[in-house]
Order: sequence, then structure tokens, then C-alpha cells
Amino acid sequence: MDSITIDTINPKVLKCEYAVRGEIVTIAQKLQQDLKDNPGSHPFDEILYCNIGNPQSLAQQPITFFREVLALCDHPSILDKSETQGLFSVDAIERAFQILDQIPGRATGAYSHSQGIKGLRDAIASGIEARDGFPADPNDLFLTDGASPAVHMMMQLLIRSENDGILCPIPQYPLYSASIALHGGTLVPYYLDEQTGWGLEISELEHQLNTAKSNGIDVRALVVINPGNPTGQVLGEANQREIVEFCKKEGLVLLADEVYQENVYVPDKKFHSFKKITRSMGYGEKDISLVSFQSVSKGFYGECGKRGGYMEITGFSPEVREQIYKLASVNLCSNISGQILASLVMSPPKVGDESYESFSAEKEAVLSSLARRAQALQDALNSLEGVTCNRAEGAMYLFPRINLPDKAIKAAEEAKTAPDAFYAKLLLNATGIVVVPGSGFRQVPGTWHFRCTILPQEEKIPAIVSRLTEFHKKFMDEFRG
Amino acid sequence: MDSITIDTINPKVLKCEYAVRGEIVTIAQKLQQDLKDNPGSHPFDEILYCNIGNPQSLAQQPITFFREVLALCDHPSILDKSETQGLFSVDAIERAFQILDQIPGRATGAYSHSQGIKGLRDAIASGIEARDGFPADPNDLFLTDGASPAVHMMMQLLIRSENDGILCPIPQYPLYSASIALHGGTLVPYYLDEQTGWGLEISELEHQLNTAKSNGIDVRALVVINPGNPTGQVLGEANQREIVEFCKKEGLVLLADEVYQENVYVPDKKFHSFKKITRSMGYGEKDISLVSFQSVSKGFYGECGKRGGYMEITGFSPEVREQIYKLASVNLCSNISGQILASLVMSPPKVGDESYESFSAEKEAVLSSLARRAQALQDALNSLEGVTCNRAEGAMYLFPRINLPDKAIKAAEEAKTAPDAFYAKLLLNATGIVVVPGSGFRQVPGTWHFRCTILPQEEKIPAIVSRLTEFHKKFMDEFRG
Repeated sequence: MDSITIDTINPKVLKCEYAVRGEIVTIAQKLQQDLKDNPGSHPFDEILYCNIGNPQSLAQQPITFFREVLALCDHPSILDKSETQGLFSVDAIERAFQILDQIPGRATGAYSHSQGIKGLRDAIASGIEARDGFPADPNDLFLTDGASPAVHMMMQLLIRSENDGILCPIPQYPLYSASIALHGGTLVPYYLDEQTGWGLEISELEHQLNTAKSNGIDVRALVVINPGNPTGQVLGEANQREIVEFCKKEGLVLLADEVYQENVYVPDKKFHSFKKITRSMGYGEKDISLVSFQSVSKGFYGECGKRGGYMEITGFSPEVREQIYKLASVNLCSNISGQILASLVMSPPKVGDESYESFSAEKEAVLSSLARRAQALQDALNSLEGVTCNRAEGAMYLFPRINLPDKAIKAAEEAKTAPDAFYAKLLLNATGIVVVPGSGFRQVPGTWHFRCTILPQEEKIPAIVSRLTEFHKKFMDEFRG
Repeated sequence: MDSITIDTINPKVLKCEYAVRGEIVTIAQKLQQDLKDNPGSHPFDEILYCNIGNPQSLAQQPITFFREVLALCDHPSILDKSETQGLFSVDAIERAFQILDQIPGRATGAYSHSQGIKGLRDAIASGIEARDGFPADPNDLFLTDGASPAVHMMMQLLIRSENDGILCPIPQYPLYSASIALHGGTLVPYYLDEQTGWGLEISELEHQLNTAKSNGIDVRALVVINPGNPTGQVLGEANQREIVEFCKKEGLVLLADEVYQENVYVPDKKFHSFKKITRSMGYGEKDISLVSFQSVSKGFYGECGKRGGYMEITGFSPEVREQIYKLASVNLCSNISGQILASLVMSPPKVGDESYESFSAEKEAVLSSLARRAQALQDALNSLEGVTCNRAEGAMYLFPRINLPDKAIKAAEEAKTAPDAFYAKLLLNATGIVVVPGSGFRQVPGTWHFRCTILPQEEKIPAIVSRLTEFHKKFMDEFRG
């Protein structure tokens, strides 16, 4: 009998791509094993993973207050022991008690409401209100295992067939192309303008929407990633208002990926949520369908392994909301530690709390160091021959453009690989630095980029810069032609 | 412009049903709020949730050792403080150190390998080997946020269109029907035989497979739930061998839901994994494609809120495995606390460890109490007029059959509801007991059942029995005709 083969599995799975953990990472893992088995076998002594926004894998320490509360909620029976006073801060103990009181039966090991524990959603809603200055409803919140499952849930809801399209920025975070492929829809690209710092032009949105329509595509939603991934730009308020008007006029669901909302590094830019923008324009429930995604994996906390996050959905009919609830309920609920962490992220210690000063110091240390690292890497990249790099106003990435010589492009063709993947592989083999080729994020045809995180430890940045610079010089000497 | 309405969302979402958190539960939540707002407004003073296998929501306490380790891994900086010695057991501290050593950079807040942390997979593989007496490979393990995402992943891989079928037991756990509907496939039912204690007959499998084939369905996999949900039966070894032969002969992937593997309550039955059965028959990688699902939500630990679990996949080609890996990588990884807990569940304290005795006592107390509760509820149900109930040999549920009088069926018709949903609603309104109508699990047409967990606290069982008995008498008096 025939069994399951690569030719008989779901072709949508075959079509899906996710470069952030693709071929380059597999090579890097082999090199790492190599270095362990045969130290000195390569011209570097460690692999530097700049491929993924995973801060704690690069030695960023967790925020103490958050971990104190999580530990106490995991093992509440120590809460009233005297030794606990010596080990945990007063407000962490208080917060753990508060959170446990909000959980029915204090049962941190039980499935919760499918949208997440009501009391934690209350705390998150308060945090959103404090952030935006507009009301937020805990019943609009769906807590999820990181932001990715929330994105999948919305794609599953919106996509009926390949005739349904989702407008996505190019370059984009490949979760979007992967999720659209898995759900059998069509990605409708709109290009960010590299010349103007990855600007988002409404005329481009209109052009691409009309092109898609004339191809018979029913465009259902617009994805905006702000701050941008992989591009690092922070949208201006006026631009955001135009985007809202566009979605309202065209009847598109606005899918706002706002997971980097706390990662802004430049004084001339500020994060504004699309919820705040729509409400400040006077638009409410009936005017626009808006989904905002948030995650505990990013920000200054970077708790990727905890898989916490939420989406806030507004402007959907009760019948559609019921369907979203049903989708959530099939998977029962997201993990409770992630739920607790999402509530902490949105309602951190306040002035006067015992942990406030140490919490603020930890936060400030991470964010200011990220800003310095972004600047240093960006300066280094811009000093390389044929490389231009927009600044990382926010998020965790730089996305430099490399003008590759013809000879390099030809060599890549011979190696049957994309030119930027060719560059990234040589870079990895020469330096141990792992970046993701721009082709994994899509880009203007004929241009080449790579994504590099700003996350390596600050003391390692000079070495990275010199290794990268040395490699690039040699590469250009070889291929300048 | 048109926006998103119930008529324009993905029809597969509309088609999907998940009764475990369906209408009855919504009514129950309203009643609970009612009781809070107006105490004494109903003929009961609490809602008893017997609808879902969620032990800790019904006051089951977590296993101490597991929670100690989780707390220490959440906040490792207390590991070497002197107060910690007074609060945590020696072996929990040791285990936490071991686990941290297995995590690259000791970073419990980092995304892990997409299959899960290698060291934890090693521990799980050893646990599987100890359970089965056959080798297990950590590279065959995919750690997931509970078993549900693993089931979805396999359905996503296997289902290409509505012409692809998955053989599922009827009655079935509605995750399967929901997942098949969401992925656009066809559920091919095979009926368990209630007369023989929910027996699984190969002739029935063959009959249904052939019927499906003659309808143009390409049947790709067979789901077996052992111990059974909602039916509670534990398969015999000879029967399991027949099932393996059937899958091998027909080229079907065997999807073995083994999440209740530690929940067996009768001395004459024992759990055997399908992995062990296939290997003991001499079949290896090349003979059969097998997926085994396990979860931290069930067993004696019942850690539903932690969302931990894994699937062990064997008998897939490297190319297909690569596609499964890609699917896992799109969501980056499952939550690390759930991963740690999955490793603890599969490698608990051993003889000689400080926690061994208290751990064993906690385990034994839960399992023996569950056995007593199952027996008491089953006896009570069997004593009711027109009700027959197979024993719960395993899992967490009873699935009694109710022979409803014609008058009740007519009344249900008038109320536009299924007869067993009609019964369940009246039961809820009269007693506060929440059960799931059999129609949510599917059943032989014309028969009526409900699923009731065996999880309420043992001291509450007598009251439940008397409320249920009293309700049922009145119901029959009203509808006996």
C-alpha cells in the first residue's frame, strides 16, 4: 500500500516557507556541533545567532520582578512561608496573591476561559487604556501562546480560497507569508520605500489593491508591522491616519502587528497604537475592524520562551466574534504562565512599589543598550563598500541593502542559490555570524539584503563589526570583477 | 464598502464544532454569575463542571515536585540562596540545575529548538524507553503546547481536500472532528460497539474504509484514542495488534491519542503504547507510520493550564519529517515551562530521591480516588431507569446511554434541540451539574448519551449522585408518557 510521501502531503505545507529558521540556521547548528567536537576547526570560536529576535538566547537577563511573580504563581504553597520574604520582593509576593485571587479556585494548573483568565484580561485592558488614553474592553482580548497563533487564527477566519488576498508589506516578517500559504490565500504585496526609510505610501497600497482586484482577488485585510520587522521603521502619526482611512474606505480589516511597541530607539519617533489612532480620529466599533497583536517575546523583556501574547479585536459583529471564540476554544486556552506574563508586561510595577526602581533600571539598561548596539551596527554597515542601511528606529533588526557585484551574482547562480543567500552562507562560514537572507522576507526584485538582529551582547559588537568588515572587504575583493 | 460578516468568513470555521465548550457551558457560566449576583436564585448553590477533563479546576492539587522544579526554573537566581534549601526539596533543586544545564545559555526565556530543548527530549525518550522496553529517539519528538496543536499539525500535513479522509472512532473527542473540519477534510466514522464495552472491531474498520473508498475518499489515517475519550475503554493487546496490522495493510498513518496513558483504573486492563505493540510485532520504521500524542494535562498530574505535550513520530521519510519540522518552526517553539513539565512527567522522581515517597503518595492518592469516583458514579448511573453505563476502565469520563421516552424526544424536537442536549439542559437548570450531550461526540443515530467527568471532589460525589438521581426520577415521571 502507498504510505505518506512528500508527493502526497498537503501541497500548502510544501509551499509554506519560513526562512528565520531555514537552511542557514541548519548550517549554523552543524558548525556549532563541529566547534564543540573539534575546537579550532573553523576561523571563529562561536556561532553568533543574529538571525532571530531571541534576546535571552544571547544572554539578555529576564526582568527580575516578572520572574519572581511567575515562580510564586507556579508554586503558591511557598507564598506564606517566612523564607519567601527573604527571597522575593514584597510587591512580587503581593502581585502573586492578587493574580491567584483572580484565578477561579486559584488553579494555575487548570484550563482557563478560552480567551484567557478574566482578571488578567482586566489588567491588560487597563494597561491598554493607560497606553492609549481610550477605553479597552477585556472581552475584546484573546490571550494566545505568543502572537503567532493569533495571526494564524485571523488568517484562518479570513481566508476562504486562493481568491482571498491579504495585503502585506514587502519586506515582511515571514510568519505572514507562511500563514497565508498554509491557509491557501494569496499574499498581495505592497512595497515599502527603502529610499525614504521604508516609507509606507498610500498610493502604493491603492495601486496594489487595484491590481489585485483586477486579477479577481478579493482583498480582505491589510497587515501593518509597526515598528517594522525586518525593516525597523516607526510609522508617523499622520501616516497611520492615512492607513486607517484607507482601510475604512476599502472595507479592509487592519491587522496591526504591534509586538515591538516598546522597542523604539530614536527621540524623534514614538509608538502610537492603531487603536489609539482610530479612536482619536473619532472612529469606533462600527467604522473599522481592527486587530492589534502584542507579545511577551519582544519589548525590553524578550520572554520568547514563555509564549505569551494577545490580540485585541474591535469592530467585528457579535456573530463573527463568536466564531473567533470557537476557534480559540478548540485549543482550550493559552498557557497560564504566558497569560500571567502578558498581564505583567501590560501592568508593570508603578512608582512607589518596592520593585519599581530596580525594574526601571533593568528596563532602561536593556533599551539604552539596544539603541547603542543598533547605532554601532548601522554605522558599521553603512561604512561597507556597496552597502546602505536605514536606521533601526525600532524593533530589533537592521536590514541593509548590499549591492552585489555581477561576479557574485553569477557565482550564486552557479551555486543554485539566491545571491543574498550566497553572501550569507559565505559570511557564516567565514565569521560564524548568522543572518537571514533578504529573499526570506521578499524584496524589490533585483535588490539584495539581509536581516541582522541588534541583539548580540554589547561587548561583542566591536568584534562582530571587525569580523563583518574584514569578511566584506575580502568578499568584494574577490567578486568586484 | 463591505466588511467581514458571518457570510463572508471561511466556511470551514463555521462548519467546525466543539461541544466541550459549547452552548451548555455558556448557560452554566450565566447561571454561575446569577448565583453570585443573587444567591439562592436557583435550586443549587454551585455549578459542578463535569463537562471537561480539567482536574485542577475541581480542586485537584498539583504534584509538589513538578511545581517546585517549575518555580526554580522560572527564577533560577534563587537556586543558590540558603533560604531556598528550606523551601524546596533537595531533588527538586538538583533537577532544576540539571534542566538549566540542558538549556543553551540556561535561558528559560529564549525560543528553543522548534522540536523542543534537546536535553528535555532526551529525558522524554528515556521515559518512553522505560515505559515500552524499546528504543526511542529524541529526534522523533516534537514538543507542543498540549496535544491539540500536535493533532492539528498532523491534520494539516495529511489533508489536501475534502477527498482526504481520516478514520475516527464514534463517539470521538471533538478535537478530531473540529480539526478535520478546519482543514477541510472528511471524517470517516467507525463505530465503537457499546454492547461489548465500546469494542473496536476490525470488521467495522474494514467496512467503513471500503465504503469511504467507494465514495471516492482517499483515507489517509486512523485515529485511535486509548484509553478512550469519551468512552473510557482500554484496548486489549490482541486488539491493538489487529489495528496495527490493519494500518500496515491499508497504508494508513496510525494517529494514537495516548494522553490518558496513566489513567487506568481496573486491575484487568493495562495501557500498552502502540509504539510498543508495533515494535513487539517486529515492525520498525519502514513498516508503519505512527504518531503517538501525549499531554501534561491528563494522567495523575492534570496540568491543563501549562499546555505541555509532545508527539513521537516514527515511520516517516526524511523529506516528510522536514516538512513537519517546518510547520513546527513557523510557530518557533512550544512554551518552555510546558516542555520542562513534559520531561518531568516522563521522568518523575525515582526510588531513593528525596521526593520519591511524597511524590508516590500524591500520585497514588489521585489515581485511587479517581478509581473510586468512577465506580461510584457508574453504579449510580446504572441504577437509573433507562440508563446503561459501561465502566470507565481508564481516562476521565463516563458516557452513559439514556433511553429517552418518546415524549421527551418530542419535547426536544419542539424546543429545536437534540434530545440529549434537551436532557443536559434540564439537568443543568435543576442541579447545576454540567455534562456534555452525546451529540457533541457523535453517536449511533437514534441513541442518546452524555459525557460526565469523574473529576468532582470525592466528598461531593454523594451529593452529585443524589441530585442526579432525584432529577432523573422527576424527568422520567414527567416524560415517561
